[in-house]
Amino acid sequence: MNDNLHAMRHTSAHVLAAAVERLYPGVKFGVGPVVENGFYYDILFPEPISDDDLKTIEKEMKKIISEKHEMVREEISLDKAVSFFKEHGQDFKVELLKDLKEKGTTKIQTDETQDIDISKPDVATLYHTGDFVDLCRGPHIENVKDVGAFKLWKIAGAYWRGNEKNPQMQRVYGLAFETQKELDEYLAMLEEAKKRDHRKLGTELELFTIIDEVGPGLPLFYPKGAILRRLIENFIMEQQEKRGYVPIWIPHITKGKLYEISGHLQKYDAMYPPMDLPDEAQYYLKPMNCPHFMMLYKSTAHSYRDMPMRWTCTTSCYRYEKSGELSGLTRVRSLTQDDCHVFLKSDQIEQEINLMLDMIDETYRAFGFKDFWVRVSTSDPNQKEKYIGDPKIWEESEAALARLVEGRGWKKEVGVGEAAFYGPKLDFMVKDVIGRQWQLSTIQLDMNLPERFELEYADSDGKAKRPVVIHRAILGSTERFMGILIEHYGGAFPMWLAPVQIRIATVSEDFVSFAQKLKTELSDAGVRVELDDSDMKVGKKIRNAAMMKIPWTIVIGEKETQGGAFDVNVFGQEEHITIGQDQLVGEISKASKQK
Amino acid sequence: MNDNLHAMRHTSAHVLAAAVERLYPGVKFGVGPVVENGFYYDILFPEPISDDDLKTIEKEMKKIISEKHEMVREEISLDKAVSFFKEHGQDFKVELLKDLKEKGTTKIQTDETQDIDISKPDVATLYHTGDFVDLCRGPHIENVKDVGAFKLWKIAGAYWRGNEKNPQMQRVYGLAFETQKELDEYLAMLEEAKKRDHRKLGTELELFTIIDEVGPGLPLFYPKGAILRRLIENFIMEQQEKRGYVPIWIPHITKGKLYEISGHLQKYDAMYPPMDLPDEAQYYLKPMNCPHFMMLYKSTAHSYRDMPMRWTCTTSCYRYEKSGELSGLTRVRSLTQDDCHVFLKSDQIEQEINLMLDMIDETYRAFGFKDFWVRVSTSDPNQKEKYIGDPKIWEESEAALARLVEGRGWKKEVGVGEAAFYGPKLDFMVKDVIGRQWQLSTIQLDMNLPERFELEYADSDGKAKRPVVIHRAILGSTERFMGILIEHYGGAFPMWLAPVQIRIATVSEDFVSFAQKLKTELSDAGVRVELDDSDMKVGKKIRNAAMMKIPWTIVIGEKETQGGAFDVNVFGQEEHITIGQDQLVGEISKASKQK
Repeated sequence: MNDNLHAMRHTSAHVLAAAVERLYPGVKFGVGPVVENGFYYDILFPEPISDDDLKTIEKEMKKIISEKHEMVREEISLDKAVSFFKEHGQDFKVELLKDLKEKGTTKIQTDETQDIDISKPDVATLYHTGDFVDLCRGPHIENVKDVGAFKLWKIAGAYWRGNEKNPQMQRVYGLAFETQKELDEYLAMLEEAKKRDHRKLGTELELFTIIDEVGPGLPLFYPKGAILRRLIENFIMEQQEKRGYVPIWIPHITKGKLYEISGHLQKYDAMYPPMDLPDEAQYYLKPMNCPHFMMLYKSTAHSYRDMPMRWTCTTSCYRYEKSGELSGLTRVRSLTQDDCHVFLKSDQIEQEINLMLDMIDETYRAFGFKDFWVRVSTSDPNQKEKYIGDPKIWEESEAALARLVEGRGWKKEVGVGEAAFYGPKLDFMVKDVIGRQWQLSTIQLDMNLPERFELEYADSDGKAKRPVVIHRAILGSTERFMGILIEHYGGAFPMWLAPVQIRIATVSEDFVSFAQKLKTELSDAGVRVELDDSDMKVGKKIRNAAMMKIPWTIVIGEKETQGGAFDVNVFGQEEHITIGQDQLVGEISKASKQK
Repeated sequence: MNDNLHAMRHTSAHVLAAAVERLYPGVKFGVGPVVENGFYYDILFPEPISDDDLKTIEKEMKKIISEKHEMVREEISLDKAVSFFKEHGQDFKVELLKDLKEKGTTKIQTDETQDIDISKPDVATLYHTGDFVDLCRGPHIENVKDVGAFKLWKIAGAYWRGNEKNPQMQRVYGLAFETQKELDEYLAMLEEAKKRDHRKLGTELELFTIIDEVGPGLPLFYPKGAILRRLIENFIMEQQEKRGYVPIWIPHITKGKLYEISGHLQKYDAMYPPMDLPDEAQYYLKPMNCPHFMMLYKSTAHSYRDMPMRWTCTTSCYRYEKSGELSGLTRVRSLTQDDCHVFLKSDQIEQEINLMLDMIDETYRAFGFKDFWVRVSTSDPNQKEKYIGDPKIWEESEAALARLVEGRGWKKEVGVGEAAFYGPKLDFMVKDVIGRQWQLSTIQLDMNLPERFELEYADSDGKAKRPVVIHRAILGSTERFMGILIEHYGGAFPMWLAPVQIRIATVSEDFVSFAQKLKTELSDAGVRVELDDSDMKVGKKIRNAAMMKIPWTIVIGEKETQGGAFDVNVFGQEEHITIGQDQLVGEISKASKQK
């Protein structure tokens, strides 16, 4: 967001607090930062408030805005500030100021915002909004009258400083935009997103579930969800194999030794704790696949003739995400990556990345993602000492990345200095049909792991050389991608992806044997078909099929058993289409090709 | 093995010890039990012996046999026995006798034999073989002259009582059979098995490896092995899906809570230790899939109309097998089961099992297993109280199992009383081409888990009924089955299973572009093809392809680039076959259909 919008949102948070102070004497304030699309404030009310109270608070906020207060900045000594907030019963602010004095920082961790530094280290910065005074680093807009369009949105529980041993406060969320139009659009999108929520559709469409006794973040997939998984994974597999990628297979656990070599044990903090086998070793669930790939490469000899070696494995990794951060399929603890590692000579980087871009292009088209852009993370030319590997490889590959993305006419942003110390990177940001943005594919060069694992190949001159590695995932993870897809399609999958492509509904008992025969024929032809031969009314059967968002439904009655053409109810369409009996398989297969 | 053979083998172990005592004064003896195909004795030699010494020991054994000693049994008090063995410096025997006195048992755990009870609890039983005296429960044959044919086979290290804190002894293995012919046949089979050893072939054919830093029992698969895995798993998937099985998907870890409900946490001892998350729960790697299947079933409502519900998931389980028991792919710690659970009404058991037998029949044929028999484990009619569930279901399903197996003309053995308390079972024992027997498929009825998990379906009368569950695996695990298959085929896979079906070898640089084009054509047609365009001599290239046991190899030279027919080198065959250029894909596809 731009600086002005950031300041507007930040000022809105102060207006919220000012309104709350007027309405609820004795209230205590935590912190109130800017977040995506708005702001929040953590507040300890004398009595917890409910959603109904948000209207009242909003009204008071509007009143304050109409009073056109300037946002007045003041700097006072830390001690004076402590006295001021103590006097006003603001214990949390006092705590922050004491931290500032003792540790020189107020950085606090909450579950949403990693670091909030609430003031400068040496002096307390205050902002006045009429009578309301807050400890705040700023900046703000000049006058509250310019905060733009906002709306209080929801309340959630939040522990002070994200620690459940501290008092539980209420987090009041506000949406805030520069104009009412933008706010309205965002609210409409939220409304649409709610209908498309993959967690809701996941249950309704019998795709997946999360079960207490198994654990949060560990979805289980019903048959329809398992088929969707497979369709997605098979699509990727086909894309890969026609480009010369070959599968390998690795176990899900390993001795800690492997992660000592890779460095993950020292640095990666989302690993599950070890399984301790005192007589043998500590075993870990793998949080990523790279070290296994490296070891497998290292276990045999390789020649320049084998390069590039494109290895892939669709396999699960495990990351212990905080339970508060888990969400349906889009944030899980068990994630199945479409992971590839390519081992190559440094002069093959450009052609190899181009091949990856081909695949990304084809994949996004297939799933209907038309709007995307690329973030190119490069090294910082002023801090060359930060980066390992041959500077020539850096230079050439960064140039190649930019050139390749541009050559395709794709939007890009360059993040100078955002590359990891071991190589430049491409990240793909994709917009779904309702305009939300998701990060999907990643292409990451790596000059570190080949070094750490001492990987080699014999070059044409017979000498041992170190290969470059490119990490690459197109979908990220099957689970997250499925979550995004469910919302993108609102659960109404196109024919090629629909777990059930066609449902047959019988008008009465008399037509069941015909319908069963038809079902077997379709099934044998590879069509994903369901039969509803229950004794419900046929109208109800059609409505049920529509509830499940099945692309096609056909009714079997007198006409059909006499050889008459099928009237196909197409999901989301008013008009039937008519298909001759012997054309049905062909038409489904034709519809499946339309990606 | 029959009682006489068992006694012969046991007596051979005593003869071995007697010979060793004559040759190595000061030697100390551990235990010497009977094992499959022979016997062993754990011995602490004054100086470790080597394979070369086995000949000398064998010679002495033959001398003892020619002396025709009776095996004389004697019973003396435990105290007297302690004095006797102490006097003769046999510390391990003394330890066993003390255990016998204090604990009433000498049951000891070694890595190969779970329980050895060395004597009766109240009195020491000794056996005399000439001057040699051993503590032993018996029985033995009457005279050493009748021990049959034997051969000392190998030496391995073994800790006393299987505990690495105890002294390390040497385990001397002997093979023993009733006749020299049987021994010779067994030795020939061993020789053949050695050539076919899947661990050796696994490396030579680039199928899999086991890496120290990852851990024992956790194989990683190279591309060729990963393709073989997939071919096997896809075959099973196709077999299942045409019979109405549908996939589900489950995570590999779960809260301990799930295994409390299933009872595994209390009873199953091969589980990996937990991953302890103090703020949340203990998480476990799944050692089997049943509890996840049960929970997924339970998470939605089911009707009699849905039955039978055939759910399948090819997924990995983790079992912490002792490192001494691990072996290549046939005994691993990470195993991928072709696991199915069928939920059904009790009147559907027979038809459902019949469907499973169809699949077993078709699968064994496809993989060339022609010789197999079935073990039927039933309840013990004299201990009816041991078994849970409806006795009528027991009776009917046991009768159905026997009837179905007989109806197909399959050999069977009935193990009365060998059923688990929760249901009868079928186990399939399969012989490979060199006559070794493997246990593969299992079909297990279960009336326990549906009870424990309180599973239900709505019957046609609207009442809630409990389903029966059938557990079923055809291959057991992908890894173990692959291990067996590699040995069964000696690494020379038939066309449909070969990771590489055809290799193209160029005569010289001039023909590389033609060969590359051909490779692309074949690959696009779905053929698994490799190209050897190195600068080796073509004869060497053909020999290399044969080393990799690739079914077909074709050479590309002048004649072929002019459109001449391909001369195909067929693995294991003297004569070439000739195939016109435009028939190649068709012929490979035809050869792939011959299972």
